[in-house]
Amino acid sequence: MDRTPVWFMRQAGRFLPEYRAIREHHSLLEICAQPDLAARVALLPVHQLGVDAAILFADIMLPLIPMGIDLEFSPDEGPVIHNPVRASQDIARLRAFQPDEELAHVLEAVRILRAELPLDVPLIGFAGAPFTVASYMVEGGPSRHYLATKSLMLSEPTLWHTLMEKLTDVLSAYLLGQVRAGAQAIQLFDSWVGALSPEDYRQFVAPYSAAILQSLAKTGVPRIHFGTGTGSLLEDLQAAGGDVIGLDWRTPLDQARRRLGPTVAIQGNLDPAVMLAPLPVLERRVLEVLSKAGGRPGHIFNLGHGIYPETPVENVRAVVEIVQAYRANLATNTEA
Amino acid sequence: MDRTPVWFMRQAGRFLPEYRAIREHHSLLEICAQPDLAARVALLPVHQLGVDAAILFADIMLPLIPMGIDLEFSPDEGPVIHNPVRASQDIARLRAFQPDEELAHVLEAVRILRAELPLDVPLIGFAGAPFTVASYMVEGGPSRHYLATKSLMLSEPTLWHTLMEKLTDVLSAYLLGQVRAGAQAIQLFDSWVGALSPEDYRQFVAPYSAAILQSLAKTGVPRIHFGTGTGSLLEDLQAAGGDVIGLDWRTPLDQARRRLGPTVAIQGNLDPAVMLAPLPVLERRVLEVLSKAGGRPGHIFNLGHGIYPETPVENVRAVVEIVQAYRANLATNTEA
Repeated sequence: MDRTPVWFMRQAGRFLPEYRAIREHHSLLEICAQPDLAARVALLPVHQLGVDAAILFADIMLPLIPMGIDLEFSPDEGPVIHNPVRASQDIARLRAFQPDEELAHVLEAVRILRAELPLDVPLIGFAGAPFTVASYMVEGGPSRHYLATKSLMLSEPTLWHTLMEKLTDVLSAYLLGQVRAGAQAIQLFDSWVGALSPEDYRQFVAPYSAAILQSLAKTGVPRIHFGTGTGSLLEDLQAAGGDVIGLDWRTPLDQARRRLGPTVAIQGNLDPAVMLAPLPVLERRVLEVLSKAGGRPGHIFNLGHGIYPETPVENVRAVVEIVQAYRANLATNTEA
Repeated sequence: MDRTPVWFMRQAGRFLPEYRAIREHHSLLEICAQPDLAARVALLPVHQLGVDAAILFADIMLPLIPMGIDLEFSPDEGPVIHNPVRASQDIARLRAFQPDEELAHVLEAVRILRAELPLDVPLIGFAGAPFTVASYMVEGGPSRHYLATKSLMLSEPTLWHTLMEKLTDVLSAYLLGQVRAGAQAIQLFDSWVGALSPEDYRQFVAPYSAAILQSLAKTGVPRIHFGTGTGSLLEDLQAAGGDVIGLDWRTPLDQARRRLGPTVAIQGNLDPAVMLAPLPVLERRVLEVLSKAGGRPGHIFNLGHGIYPETPVENVRAVVEIVQAYRANLATNTEA
């Protein structure tokens, strides 16, 4: 497809009744551990919503388990880490591992998906970026202020850099494994990077995200580099790499185009809260996103973050139709 | 003082042992209800840290109580609202009130403080901005995604505007009352406004913040307009008004100066997490903030948000000394 594909972060999630039905019998980690089931879940939005791309069903925390992190998910889906990483010995204890072996179930889900997906529906692989993953490891779960993470960074920079190096190695190998197994694009989720000042980002985070993205360059697959709250560090995020920069709703796409220039594509950026609005409001907002993206190629329509579980399925379907109609209309006009 | 005063958001807070001692015997709301005690607490950082300004000890939620909101604070200090405002009748039920009567205790604390403060230490009054206050009212407490708030905005815009009008009236009167009682500057806290896209901010929020700030223009007191996560809506926040724009650490002050121009002063913006760093790191970061602010008048040194309870008191005192030494040095150089 040559212009404006549409997919949604968390498109295989709790807003889908079929997903909720599966979750009645299987935990999140159980689904991830069973490649057939993970693939079935990832296919749901392709069949039911008509999105233009599938994304691997997995969780950004999965690579932590073979590193030795004691992880579970709370009933509200938040990760809980029972042995947070704060001191020198915690970091020394983290195991390097071969994703081909210890995350073989994820790579198998990629292979199944690739075999089952229609040829014109690409499969997106993904991983959490080192900062976002490290923040969970250090805080022990989701955080509002990232105080323990920032304290480690500022008070023990050598430890911090060691942790980031270990994560960089593991996450690069994991993403390369996904591409080898058949992923046709990858997204690096640095979801919480907007908590940082540009200076801290450049000093403590960017080199590691850059190394991961660089390690994927030779594969030739498009690399989507995503963060939220990046209004003040968009240029720095871009400098760390990526063929596509994923934005949240805080930065209007016309502003993003101006700041990022013509060398990268953009992805985003409808506020997922708008997905709960009445259809006429929703339609107007979708068209505004498309219009601000400039009607040019190089825009992947998405939300600014994951779909909320409260989102009506018919609204998601409507957005897919609006984007696809807009695209068809543009194509007709261009050909005329 | 002609240049670079220093004060801290939450400077009379849990990081101070004397405050914690008072809190062993009095809840947050009890302190706010007793003008003598509230004044005593607000004076603590002036006497113990040597800050250049005092700020009223109060909470942005106080005006909600006479409006009919059933408010308490959880053990971790988060506000809990037992009757959140979501439907038409909830908003209709909200009472307008006279701050001179129903928040007389707060205004009395202002008068006591003004009488007790040294003549060269100005007193800052404050209120929450309508969006930030409304978000607590609608969500029932702190929120990560503001989904109920945004849903009200987008699905029931008429109700939303009614709620914002009611809050605007109450908050304007409250701030005017503080100025009449002796506050020599005011800060409008729109702490959570960074959750919004610029479009939603302009349409649903800015007119109300602007009305409040405008209602204070005739008093002549400096108006500080503060938000966090405002990297993508700084210009819109400025357009809504304020003589000083308060920034968090996400937007470097040199970038802020460029974007905001020479007609407003700036306040900020050290990451409060840096206050927990070793002293040499802390000192370097404070000097960087001062340097990025440009060494010109029109900068109030502050954090990018409130001091964390975990902050060592000696670090706070050190920052006051660094800023005051920098200022003295600048003054000497200018005079030479």
